[in-house]
Amino acid sequence: MKINANYLNLKNNYLFSTIARKVTEFKRANPGLTVYRLDIGDVTLPLAGAVTHAMAAATAEMGEKATFRGYGPEQGHVFLRTAVQNYYKKFGVELQTTEIFISDGAKSDLGNFLDILSCENSALIPDPVYPAYVDVNVMLGRKVYIAPSGKENGFKAAPPKDISADIIYLCSPNNPTGAVFTKAELEAWVDYAKKCGALILFDGAYESFIRDPDLPRSIYQINGAEKCAVEICSFSKTAGFTGTRCGYTIVPHSLVFEGAELNKLWLRRQCTKFNGVPYVVQRAAEAVFSEEGQKQIRANIDYYMENAACIHNALDELKIWHVGGVNSPYIWLEIPNGLTSWEFFDILLTKANVVGTPGAGFGEAGEGFFRLNAFGDKELTGAAMKRFAETVKSL
Amino acid sequence: MKINANYLNLKNNYLFSTIARKVTEFKRANPGLTVYRLDIGDVTLPLAGAVTHAMAAATAEMGEKATFRGYGPEQGHVFLRTAVQNYYKKFGVELQTTEIFISDGAKSDLGNFLDILSCENSALIPDPVYPAYVDVNVMLGRKVYIAPSGKENGFKAAPPKDISADIIYLCSPNNPTGAVFTKAELEAWVDYAKKCGALILFDGAYESFIRDPDLPRSIYQINGAEKCAVEICSFSKTAGFTGTRCGYTIVPHSLVFEGAELNKLWLRRQCTKFNGVPYVVQRAAEAVFSEEGQKQIRANIDYYMENAACIHNALDELKIWHVGGVNSPYIWLEIPNGLTSWEFFDILLTKANVVGTPGAGFGEAGEGFFRLNAFGDKELTGAAMKRFAETVKSL
Repeated sequence: MKINANYLNLKNNYLFSTIARKVTEFKRANPGLTVYRLDIGDVTLPLAGAVTHAMAAATAEMGEKATFRGYGPEQGHVFLRTAVQNYYKKFGVELQTTEIFISDGAKSDLGNFLDILSCENSALIPDPVYPAYVDVNVMLGRKVYIAPSGKENGFKAAPPKDISADIIYLCSPNNPTGAVFTKAELEAWVDYAKKCGALILFDGAYESFIRDPDLPRSIYQINGAEKCAVEICSFSKTAGFTGTRCGYTIVPHSLVFEGAELNKLWLRRQCTKFNGVPYVVQRAAEAVFSEEGQKQIRANIDYYMENAACIHNALDELKIWHVGGVNSPYIWLEIPNGLTSWEFFDILLTKANVVGTPGAGFGEAGEGFFRLNAFGDKELTGAAMKRFAETVKSL
Repeated sequence: MKINANYLNLKNNYLFSTIARKVTEFKRANPGLTVYRLDIGDVTLPLAGAVTHAMAAATAEMGEKATFRGYGPEQGHVFLRTAVQNYYKKFGVELQTTEIFISDGAKSDLGNFLDILSCENSALIPDPVYPAYVDVNVMLGRKVYIAPSGKENGFKAAPPKDISADIIYLCSPNNPTGAVFTKAELEAWVDYAKKCGALILFDGAYESFIRDPDLPRSIYQINGAEKCAVEICSFSKTAGFTGTRCGYTIVPHSLVFEGAELNKLWLRRQCTKFNGVPYVVQRAAEAVFSEEGQKQIRANIDYYMENAACIHNALDELKIWHVGGVNSPYIWLEIPNGLTSWEFFDILLTKANVVGTPGAGFGEAGEGFFRLNAFGDKELTGAAMKRFAETVKSL
């Protein structure tokens, strides 16, 4: 029996394990000291009341023979797909419920969707980037092209002129940079995809953080995207579902490649390798879209965005270049004094006791930059940024 | 962009859709008539009290900031992996918690595990068979060999003499036949796998239905299996989790192929393409292993096994050859009078108003056989078998 040798080509990504080790060692050497975590991309506010209420009611249903639910549709219950459909109507996108697939989160489908695409396809991936985009392609032996981004384009990669790619990964609002594509920028990507005959996998996991009504929340707000793009979303950051696991993937019927409707191939894939999301979780996700649920999750996002404002205000005062943090929970900053990401990480940890994420961990174009995030506690974030400012001034 | 052309080689399996259409048409033509469903492989009893209690408590935890849980380990929470570890100790199997991966059900991992294995491997699959085993291999363009089984070997396929396979699918208790491998039969498979250098994917989704203490519940009860087998289990039938979605996959550290530890490759795969099972579901699954939980799920399995006894007693009286139904919720019977599976299906539906599953839908070796299952209501199962007997006698 042979293993999939492509796995041997995967780079070990020590970003998060190295951060964890350094923080643990620092804490051990300095017991009792408060360490401020602005590095972890996980939410801290609990599930909204409307959500736990719905989940508790569904749990009770599962305990009674008359209301018990067994196998559900692999694609998700119609009640939740209808709720997603109605949500998209709010920003002018018309979907059929058969175009919506309920998933256990964006990460799964960002990788699994590749199952239905040939391994001969090349992938084009912006840098800096969520590391899984690269890994899932390397696992299948695909050629990976990098679309670098940087300060000059506000960390929003533009379509390359000299490469014809088959599969394109886009993430907006971006993880790790927090940059958000404008309508014109996304139009350029859709045009490029059409020219190449490429498929865009659009990761919209952070769409609910977009405040600016002129910024697209969905790639389907761009004309023609329904013929070249799959959109992958998640309740993780929208509604604190990081430990609850639910998302949705949009596969328009109009996506046709080599005469095959991708929607049908994906349905076949899901029916063969997936058995749907727990009923209680689908009821919880449905509650996110209720009037009460929307009000409550909006309050949570407001809370995180106040943290984001606190962070970017502090950076403005320090005259540090940065993006994100306005329509995104991530803030991406240029490290002062020409320090490397890891040098800055160490100084910040030891002097300010603040932990952030070194940009180099997200790709070559991330060197010299640093990610802070807004998912923490408000008071701790404020205190952390004061200490951050003092340390930067002392450099 | 090219699609994965292997998908075009998938056979459309119309088994369940054809059953659904025929039943719907019959009901429409005969309104008010009771139709007895002994075809659907889904549980009907609700979740046990210990399980819903744990799920409700976990839901409440998720609603409070102090006890909220975000991202968990992709491999599953330690509390649940420890519970699985202790469960295996009961039948003499020692596992490390790092060898246990919590999944969203057996179906996902039976397909996804192939991600880490080369597409050049051939697969050996018994017939009749759960159709997904074949499909997940065809999707990757693998050569598929069939190991036929039949009346002569009690529908327990034996290792072939003339084929050297790379990946072997085994399911015991078997779906659809209900046959259970003895220790000697599994030893023969482990010997064969070692001789071929093959990997066994052992589907133990129905292990909790085994009553006979001499029958192995886990392939790791066979010496040497830890060097050639992955075991994939589920709470679906054990504890009624078909709509709740949880299972576990065992990948021993001693599984080494081409110098690579499969456990490490699988961990990498899961960390890249999966984000774990919902916290509330993992707490529910943990409760299955509590003293109270075990008592309650045992009572549910007893209930189903009384249905199974009712079915096989009726078949015994009719002198119809059958397997399963003793250590399994499925009963597989030889159709009398040389009728085909679908002919018998139609007669049973129209004359007895009983629905079963035609064996031909599970592969060529299933023609002339029929599956009944024990997951229904006790009274309805009893009534169905009376009508079944009358119809068979009238043939």
